[in-house]
Amino acid sequence: MINNTFLETIREKNPLIHNITNKVVANDVANCTIAVGASPFMADAVEEMEEASSNADALVLNIGTLNKPIVESMLAAGKSANKNGVPVVLDPVGIGATSYRKSVVKQLLNEISFEVIRGNTGEIATLAEVEWKAKGVDSGSGDVSSKDIVKQVAINEKCIVAISGEEDVISDGDRVAVISNGHKYMSKITGSGCMLSGVIGGFVSVSRNNIFEAVQMAHSAFGIAGEKAANRQDVLGNGTFRSALIDELYNLTAEDITNRYKKKELI
Amino acid sequence: MINNTFLETIREKNPLIHNITNKVVANDVANCTIAVGASPFMADAVEEMEEASSNADALVLNIGTLNKPIVESMLAAGKSANKNGVPVVLDPVGIGATSYRKSVVKQLLNEISFEVIRGNTGEIATLAEVEWKAKGVDSGSGDVSSKDIVKQVAINEKCIVAISGEEDVISDGDRVAVISNGHKYMSKITGSGCMLSGVIGGFVSVSRNNIFEAVQMAHSAFGIAGEKAANRQDVLGNGTFRSALIDELYNLTAEDITNRYKKKELI
Amino acid sequence: MINNTFLETIREKNPLIHNITNKVVANDVANCTIAVGASPFMADAVEEMEEASSNADALVLNIGTLNKPIVESMLAAGKSANKNGVPVVLDPVGIGATSYRKSVVKQLLNEISFEVIRGNTGEIATLAEVEWKAKGVDSGSGDVSSKDIVKQVAINEKCIVAISGEEDVISDGDRVAVISNGHKYMSKITGSGCMLSGVIGGFVSVSRNNIFEAVQMAHSAFGIAGEKAANRQDVLGNGTFRSALIDELYNLTAEDITNRYKKKELI
Repeated sequence: MINNTFLETIREKNPLIHNITNKVVANDVANCTIAVGASPFMADAVEEMEEASSNADALVLNIGTLNKPIVESMLAAGKSANKNGVPVVLDPVGIGATSYRKSVVKQLLNEISFEVIRGNTGEIATLAEVEWKAKGVDSGSGDVSSKDIVKQVAINEKCIVAISGEEDVISDGDRVAVISNGHKYMSKITGSGCMLSGVIGGFVSVSRNNIFEAVQMAHSAFGIAGEKAANRQDVLGNGTFRSALIDELYNLTAEDITNRYKKKELI
Repeated sequence: MINNTFLETIREKNPLIHNITNKVVANDVANCTIAVGASPFMADAVEEMEEASSNADALVLNIGTLNKPIVESMLAAGKSANKNGVPVVLDPVGIGATSYRKSVVKQLLNEISFEVIRGNTGEIATLAEVEWKAKGVDSGSGDVSSKDIVKQVAINEKCIVAISGEEDVISDGDRVAVISNGHKYMSKITGSGCMLSGVIGGFVSVSRNNIFEAVQMAHSAFGIAGEKAANRQDVLGNGTFRSALIDELYNLTAEDITNRYKKKELI
Repeated sequence: MINNTFLETIREKNPLIHNITNKVVANDVANCTIAVGASPFMADAVEEMEEASSNADALVLNIGTLNKPIVESMLAAGKSANKNGVPVVLDPVGIGATSYRKSVVKQLLNEISFEVIRGNTGEIATLAEVEWKAKGVDSGSGDVSSKDIVKQVAINEKCIVAISGEEDVISDGDRVAVISNGHKYMSKITGSGCMLSGVIGGFVSVSRNNIFEAVQMAHSAFGIAGEKAANRQDVLGNGTFRSALIDELYNLTAEDITNRYKKKELI
């Protein structure tokens, strides 16, 4: 059975999502946040992190374009969120690409409790310290199954972990759910994963007692928006797809999700 | 009677608008600046602020994503603009959200003379030190009328103050004008207020003897572009609306403004 | 004869392009990089520059929104790229606007070997230390011919130099090629030059033995995408043009280039 009340609840409650995100996707993340019915607060000055995160309904940390002051802000915001019971989502963008990113994520994981970690296969595999051919922010490919990796990281980090890709594989350390909504077009725009992490922030902010389900439904919702966008007559390439994806997130209804939801059995 | 020469003058003179703005909306602000006929200069290194602002025809300071170096740059740019007679516009984004933003804006107001301050109701109310339920960058709601607030802040800060919203309320401290162009879609994209502040930069750069009227006409022009965009067949959500809004600003003519201008009597 | 294999090669090899670029155009540059078939890596923390650039297939440095830490990162990335034989592209955005930009570019040119420098007429003229009326990031206008300027800078800097504009003028210090693809709409969006510099990164990454030709073909490809975008029925202003331009880069084929390629004789 589908718990299809998330979107409605977000639109009713209009939660505030504090995003510390990168300069490449900040605009798209903010517009996706609005599209699902939440309010984005995009702030990363260390001076305002404690206050910003304590007032938010969720915090999303995205390491896409890092630097030292932003890492400091992420730590301050994350600790404030933890102290105030605000759920925190981590997007370890391109973690496989440089040892700096690996060490920053290690520090974040040591000092902050996350409710959700979302990345592509290569990123989550890096977290699993699995050997993996990672190149830049791309997902790479390898021999270990996504299900093993996602479960292992969920156990290690004691939170929900999601690998987004052609199939989204999501685990709470015990169960593994596979969502197969989405469209290959989504990999042809920059930051679709970052946008999804923002959307997850919205979903978990209204469902703190069932984050595993919220993360699944966020993946499905975002994937269905992508399917609908890809099928539009006015989408003629990745430029127009990007706008259409945000549109379809904005137009998405519970009925769309009921009709198109594709989840494989839990494993 | 409508003074409908602003757009034409901007397009003829192609003024240079120096924007210190946030990473979320920088692209949209630059494209809106071009759309009205001005040239954006997007720079925020403290080393080049004095020169950049002295050569500009207007300076727009937007505190959407602050940090210490950017505050330093805003102060340097603002002082240079003041010294050189370049009009300065302030957009106190999310000032109600954190005490850091309040203190930064206080410092900016102490050290720089502004010609225009533009925000939403909650932001301008915070400036008025009115009790107000402000949440993040959203506008909040309260009991004091926008007209009282905008007038009080205009008196306090000795400049034109504008509250943008369903109705735009603009005051020079003496008179209050109400512009009711615009469309609710404009609140469904991130940074529509920031874009408007950029557009105001363009309008005031060509009308330094009548800034009160320029700010009204900028609000009307931006609102009419929003109305036209919202009515387009190809706008199917907030993603496509964003592009259409910039389009319609680009296509906007003096005739559009004459035909659609909605101003209530001055109070 | 047209060497029309670049796009195909990029799409086959999917090179990694490290971009240190400005906050205004970061999203568009990343989407254009994907559109031509490459993978963008957008990173500017000094801690990861050596690693990021040594693993990349090309590095693009864009000074659009500078600050001290980013300059430090550019130097570190550029030196790493040089050491590892990774081609480096420079986009001296707005160099004529402030003496800070001039001094930063001077330092970059002193400490890094570039394979390509691309700018508008005013920017490249500033590099040539020619007297030139430059205003902000706009191109200005002057009396010396673009061909003389581009050749002189190519000789001085020992690399390929390109001036993009109505006609693109490109030199290796000996020969000068003139490409006349493109559409005036391209000057009505922010960052079209920055996007082109990103695209050049993709082209030079797969043709390190013939960078002069790669830069010509990148200009032609980008220009043809602009022509196709400008002719689309769904382009109704500069907002929709921006998305359509990325679309058409994504859709561009070798056949499009063969059919539309406009190059004047070498001089």
